[in-house]
Amino acid sequence: MDERTALMQRAIDAARLGPQADPNPRVGCVVTDAAGRVTGVGHHRGAGTAHAEVDALAQAGESARGGTAHVTLEPCNHTGRTGPCTAALLEAGITRVVFAVADPDPVAAGGAATLAAAGVAVEAGVLREAAAALNESWLHARRTGRPFVIAKSASTLDGRTAAADGSSRWITGEAARADVHDLRSRCGAVVVGTGTALTDDPQLTVRTADGADAVGQPLRVVVGRRGLPATARVLDDAAETLLLATHDPADVLAALHARGIHRVLLEGGPTLTAAFLRAHLVDEVVAYVAPALLGGGPTVSADLGVRTIADAVRLDLVDVTVLPPDVRITARPSTAPPATAQTGT
Amino acid sequence: MDERTALMQRAIDAARLGPQADPNPRVGCVVTDAAGRVTGVGHHRGAGTAHAEVDALAQAGESARGGTAHVTLEPCNHTGRTGPCTAALLEAGITRVVFAVADPDPVAAGGAATLAAAGVAVEAGVLREAAAALNESWLHARRTGRPFVIAKSASTLDGRTAAADGSSRWITGEAARADVHDLRSRCGAVVVGTGTALTDDPQLTVRTADGADAVGQPLRVVVGRRGLPATARVLDDAAETLLLATHDPADVLAALHARGIHRVLLEGGPTLTAAFLRAHLVDEVVAYVAPALLGGGPTVSADLGVRTIADAVRLDLVDVTVLPPDVRITARPSTAPPATAQTGT
Repeated sequence: MDERTALMQRAIDAARLGPQADPNPRVGCVVTDAAGRVTGVGHHRGAGTAHAEVDALAQAGESARGGTAHVTLEPCNHTGRTGPCTAALLEAGITRVVFAVADPDPVAAGGAATLAAAGVAVEAGVLREAAAALNESWLHARRTGRPFVIAKSASTLDGRTAAADGSSRWITGEAARADVHDLRSRCGAVVVGTGTALTDDPQLTVRTADGADAVGQPLRVVVGRRGLPATARVLDDAAETLLLATHDPADVLAALHARGIHRVLLEGGPTLTAAFLRAHLVDEVVAYVAPALLGGGPTVSADLGVRTIADAVRLDLVDVTVLPPDVRITARPSTAPPATAQTGT
Repeated sequence: MDERTALMQRAIDAARLGPQADPNPRVGCVVTDAAGRVTGVGHHRGAGTAHAEVDALAQAGESARGGTAHVTLEPCNHTGRTGPCTAALLEAGITRVVFAVADPDPVAAGGAATLAAAGVAVEAGVLREAAAALNESWLHARRTGRPFVIAKSASTLDGRTAAADGSSRWITGEAARADVHDLRSRCGAVVVGTGTALTDDPQLTVRTADGADAVGQPLRVVVGRRGLPATARVLDDAAETLLLATHDPADVLAALHARGIHRVLLEGGPTLTAAFLRAHLVDEVVAYVAPALLGGGPTVSADLGVRTIADAVRLDLVDVTVLPPDVRITARPSTAPPATAQTGT
């Protein structure tokens, strides 16, 4: 591993310390002095706190003059809650900046150009993929203008999410349920339809293994026009809740994007899931499949408008993990052309 | 590994050469002379051919006198299409018999007692589990009086086996379909309902990778009272076909058991699958799950009479294998008590 790669890896490791569901990206920065010695290692701790560059420069102090900064993301060029990082780097006397991922947002981007114009040597793309993986959903939101959407389901082998009487506690086991809490904790919002809120009365919070509410809850979002009783658990004070009286998935995502949310967990029910799928607004499906059969009851998705097999919503497997006694299947909308039809069974 | 275990392993390896779906069990036999040298290794090649003991003794000839036979299954004591193996062993002068699995059938059993009464030293249970695994379904049929039943499904992540228009070619990919042919080849019969035969017009044969019919086809069985057109592919001459005008799974299994079939693949549709599940006559579920969503269409199983989640048909995972682009989930009816209900979502 060359020097640049090693320092960038260290910046990535620092970035990982940041909060995953925060509106801001996870960024790490390593500052070396003119002799190449590491004198500052910083990371971003969440919206409203110092950017990684500023954090690292504060440690490095005067040693940054004539030095190099390795940053996981292109330094920002604009003034948000904090000043532009390009200015901070120039002011500290940094003469070389190496970054991994370019900022896809035209408002914040331009940092590399600003630095270069000021005479700083700039290199881009070192460990780009690893650094991009730190902020997949944030980058997705920057590129597309909407959050990354994960549709979660918990069903039996025959695709039922509840029994005929609506009961669904518990289709999946403890390991799968703990995994859902982990998944929620990595999302900025958890979305359900009013039907699910009324039928299942979920609390939709992130709880730790001992059952306590975790620190830093995702926004709870209930979508639809039906009213909720004041006693609904989703309206308790364990986390913030947003009620969106719409049936349009694009409206939902626009409202969440405006709040800086870049990763959304869609937890059903079938009507809402179908609406997102039909609008092509699902980026990943996480299906918890219990080795059980019900033979009837609600299903994962309502009508998708699919009439024939060639029009199925095809996904590509990303991961299959056994969470005893269940299986978690992660898949994403397929980019491959559909298989050619053949005959014979 | 001691001598007995090593010789029994060799007998197991020989047994594996036999046909898996044959009415008879797969059996292997290793004969050693009085000095402990291997002089015969035999296996059973299918109904009507020599039993493994006779096969091995034929090789050993006179060297068997005063020698030992290691057999994977208790030597039979009765005259079927061939004479009893106990008589053959005694006649050859074998003075010690080591076998792995006792024969659970009272008609054929008693071989060990007969040998012991004739002065032969008999040891049982060496590598019992490995030898039993050779003939799981045969032993099951001997114990229970009915075949081992595997219910196969091919569905989307949302549990649909076909689209709204009934089309299902192809929900799963090539690897999964090849695996189904392999599964069929290890069964004595492949069973579908008349609904599936009419809707999908499957041929239900075992085909090799190049599309040719394999040698030794399982019996094709169509269950139900609806008539089939003479042009139905399941009635072609590629394999034998049995039409059973019943709706009772127990009748179906009795008819197949009478034909010496000990392993049955149930390939749907939902009505037949539900009938077997409701009758507790499914021993294994093999579910091929395609990473796709349909939002509607036929499901794996019709009504199971389950009203509430606590009454779900619970299974235990046996295996999860990715057959790109699909997932194969193998599970068996659970023997564990249901999980205690808890609250919170």
